[in-house]
Amino acid sequence: MRYSQVFPKTKKTAPKDAESINHQLLVRAGFIDQLMSGSWTFLPLGLRVLQKVVQIIREEMNATGAQELAMPLLHPKEIWNETGRWDTAKEVMYQFKDTRDKEYALSFTHEEIVIDLARKHIQSYKDLPLKIYQFSTKFRNEARARSGILRGREFLMKDLYSIHISEVDMYEYYWQVKEAYLRAFKRMGFESIKVAEASGGVFTDKHTHEFQVLADSGEDTIYYCDCGECEWVQNKEVFEGKVGEKCPECGKCEILESKSIEVGNIFPLDTRYSEKMNFFVTDENGNKINPWFASYGIGPSRVVGTLVETNHDNKGIIWPESVAPFLAHLVNIGVDASNIYTKLQDAGVDVLYDDRDLSAGEKFADADLIGIPVRLVVSKKTNGKIEWKMRNSKTEEVLDLEEVTNRLAPR
Amino acid sequence: MRYSQVFPKTKKTAPKDAESINHQLLVRAGFIDQLMSGSWTFLPLGLRVLQKVVQIIREEMNATGAQELAMPLLHPKEIWNETGRWDTAKEVMYQFKDTRDKEYALSFTHEEIVIDLARKHIQSYKDLPLKIYQFSTKFRNEARARSGILRGREFLMKDLYSIHISEVDMYEYYWQVKEAYLRAFKRMGFESIKVAEASGGVFTDKHTHEFQVLADSGEDTIYYCDCGECEWVQNKEVFEGKVGEKCPECGKCEILESKSIEVGNIFPLDTRYSEKMNFFVTDENGNKINPWFASYGIGPSRVVGTLVETNHDNKGIIWPESVAPFLAHLVNIGVDASNIYTKLQDAGVDVLYDDRDLSAGEKFADADLIGIPVRLVVSKKTNGKIEWKMRNSKTEEVLDLEEVTNRLAPR
Repeated sequence: MRYSQVFPKTKKTAPKDAESINHQLLVRAGFIDQLMSGSWTFLPLGLRVLQKVVQIIREEMNATGAQELAMPLLHPKEIWNETGRWDTAKEVMYQFKDTRDKEYALSFTHEEIVIDLARKHIQSYKDLPLKIYQFSTKFRNEARARSGILRGREFLMKDLYSIHISEVDMYEYYWQVKEAYLRAFKRMGFESIKVAEASGGVFTDKHTHEFQVLADSGEDTIYYCDCGECEWVQNKEVFEGKVGEKCPECGKCEILESKSIEVGNIFPLDTRYSEKMNFFVTDENGNKINPWFASYGIGPSRVVGTLVETNHDNKGIIWPESVAPFLAHLVNIGVDASNIYTKLQDAGVDVLYDDRDLSAGEKFADADLIGIPVRLVVSKKTNGKIEWKMRNSKTEEVLDLEEVTNRLAPR
Repeated sequence: MRYSQVFPKTKKTAPKDAESINHQLLVRAGFIDQLMSGSWTFLPLGLRVLQKVVQIIREEMNATGAQELAMPLLHPKEIWNETGRWDTAKEVMYQFKDTRDKEYALSFTHEEIVIDLARKHIQSYKDLPLKIYQFSTKFRNEARARSGILRGREFLMKDLYSIHISEVDMYEYYWQVKEAYLRAFKRMGFESIKVAEASGGVFTDKHTHEFQVLADSGEDTIYYCDCGECEWVQNKEVFEGKVGEKCPECGKCEILESKSIEVGNIFPLDTRYSEKMNFFVTDENGNKINPWFASYGIGPSRVVGTLVETNHDNKGIIWPESVAPFLAHLVNIGVDASNIYTKLQDAGVDVLYDDRDLSAGEKFADADLIGIPVRLVVSKKTNGKIEWKMRNSKTEEVLDLEEVTNRLAPR
C-alpha cells in the first residue's frame, strides 16, 4: 500500500488526555481514533494489526477442535434473569428498554446465551463436548475508561465456551485451552506470560486463571515466584501472604510483586449455569444430569494495546513481525522507488511504500513511529541497491533487490 | 470437517413461526438459530457462508481503493444531534441512557461518525478522496422482525463511505462502486440484479439506488422494463406511472411489477452532512468548502438469506460454489471413507465428511438439505471409486479419487 493513500497520516503530538503509552503512540501513528471516552475506531493500520491478532487466536482455537460462530449482541432480559446476573452484574451491563418497553442488555459476556443455545440443540452425552467461540463486540459500563485501548466501554473479545459431560472432561479441555492460549500469546510476540490464580468475579466462586503480561502500566497486581522452576502466580484478590516471603510452592525464591496487564482469562464454571438454566443432558447410563461448563476470553483489542506497552522505544512502536501491519516499510529519498515497490509486491511481500515528497528526516521519524519490522531505504546514496534496517536494531546493511526479496517473500 | 463434530445437526422440521423459506431451511440445516425475534446466531456452517460473502465484498471494496476500518457501535447523542437525526431517525434507532445519564444510540448507520472522524483528520483537498468501509453490526428498532435473516433487529452490514472535493469526483466514484457491487453480487451467485432508482429515506432528499434481487418472497416492490436493452428500474416510492405502460426510457416494452429483495444500496448524500457538521476542507484555490459525501451499504447476513430464497428446491438449499460452506460433501455408506477424506483434505479440498452411522437415506436427505455443491458417495457399490453428484443435477458419475481431486483441488 502507498502511504500517501493511507488514512490518516501520523501526528506530531499526542492528545492532551493521553496518559498511557498505547494511547499516545497508537493515536500518533494513526492506528486508532477516539470517538468518546472508552470508545475507539480501529483505523486501517490498526485494523490490520487487530486482524492478525484475531487470525492467530482463530488458528489456535480451531486447533483445539473448537468451532467458530457469531452470537447476537442484544440480549433479552429474561435469559439474564435465569441466572440472576441481570441484577448481580448490573453494574457492568448496559441495560435499557426499547420503545415497546421490552428490556435488553448489551453483551458484556455470553455464558447465558450459550447455555440457551446449547439446551435447544443438545440432549445427549453423544453431542458433548461442545466447544464454540466467537469474535465479537463486548460492552461494559465503565465509570472511568482510561488506559487507551486497554480498557474500553466497547471492545473486541474472543470468547470460547465449552460444555462437558463430566468435571474430568471439562478440566482436560480447560488445561488444553491454557496451553493454546500460551501458544497464541507467544506467536503474537509476548515473551513472558504469567498464568495467575484469580477470583472469578461475577462469573464463578471458583478460582480462575488470568494470563498476565508484566508491564509497568498495568492495572493489575500479581505476586509471583521467579525461580524459573515452579510457576506460582496469584493475583492480589487471592494472595494471602506478603512480598518477600518464600514461595509456598517451591520454597526457594522470595515472592515478587508486579503491576501487570491481563490479556486473557479462563473460568471453570462447573454446573452452576446449567443448573440455574435447567439445562440437562442424558448421560451414558440414561440419567439426566447438568453438564459442566467453562468459558475462556482473550481481548484482541486489549492485546494490541498491550503489545505497544511492552514493545516501544522513545521513537515509537516496535511491532513483532507476526502482528505488524506490514512486514516492510519502503522509503524513497529523492529518487523514485515505484519499480522496487511493484517488484516486492509481485513477490508477495507485505510492504508499505512511503511515496510522499518529504525529507528523509520526516520519513524516518514516521517509520520509527509506525514501527514496521524492516525499513528499506532507496536513495541516490544506495546507488540502485537498498538499505536494510530492522526497527529494533541500529545496524544498516546495503543489499540488492534479490537478497531483500529472498528475506521477505513468503515461503 | 467431520459432520459428527459439527454443532448442531439438521432438524426434521422447521419452527412453527417460520414463514419464510430462508428461516425454514437455514434453521433446519443448522446454519442459524433464533435468540429472539429479529436476532440470530450464525452457527458454524452459517458463519462459513457469511465469511465467504464478506470476503467477496472485501475484495471488491479494496479493488475500488477503499480502506477497511472498524468504528464503534455505541454513539454519543451529541454527534447525532448535529444533523438532527437523533430526532428524525428516532423510530429506527435504539436510544438509551447509561447509569450516569449519558445518552447513547446504537449504530443503525455511521454517516455522522464518519464525518466526525474525517473532520478530525482531513483539512485539505490533498487528503481527498477518502474511501473507508467496515463490516459491523447494525441495530434497528423493528416493530415486526420477520422474514428470517432478511430483516433483523441486529444484523451485519458492510458500510462504505466516500468523501470528495467535488460533485463530479463523488459521482465518478459512485458509479465505480455501482459496478463493484454488481461484480460482488455476480460472484456470490446472483444471476440477475436490478438497480432501482429509489428515495433516500432518512438519509437524503436525492434519488438513491437499490440493488434488487427478483424474488417472490421480497418485501419490496419494483417496476422495471425487461427489454434487455435499457435498464429502467424504479421502486414504488418514486414510480409515478402504471404497470403495463410503455417504458419511459426505451419506449418499447411494457413496465412490469415484481416483489423483490433489496441486498444493497448506494446514497449520493451531497454536502448536507458536511454542512450540518461544520466539516470544511481547503480546495485548490485556498477556499474553505464543504466536501461531497456518499454512502454505500450491503447486508451480508441478508445476502445469505436472499441466496436461500433464490437457490433452493423442495429438498433444501442449493449453495452457489463461491459461498458454499464446503465445496464437497463426502458421505460413506457401510464402508469407512476416512482415508479418502484425509487425501481430499491433504489436496486442499474444502470437504465436509458425514462420518455418522446412519442410513443412506438419512445422510442423502441431510446432504440435500445442507446444499453443498458436490456430493461424493463411497459405498460397497462404488467399489473403491467415488460417486459424484452435483446438488443441482440428477446425474451421477463414478470416478476414481484422482479425477475427483483434480476437479475439486484449488488451482
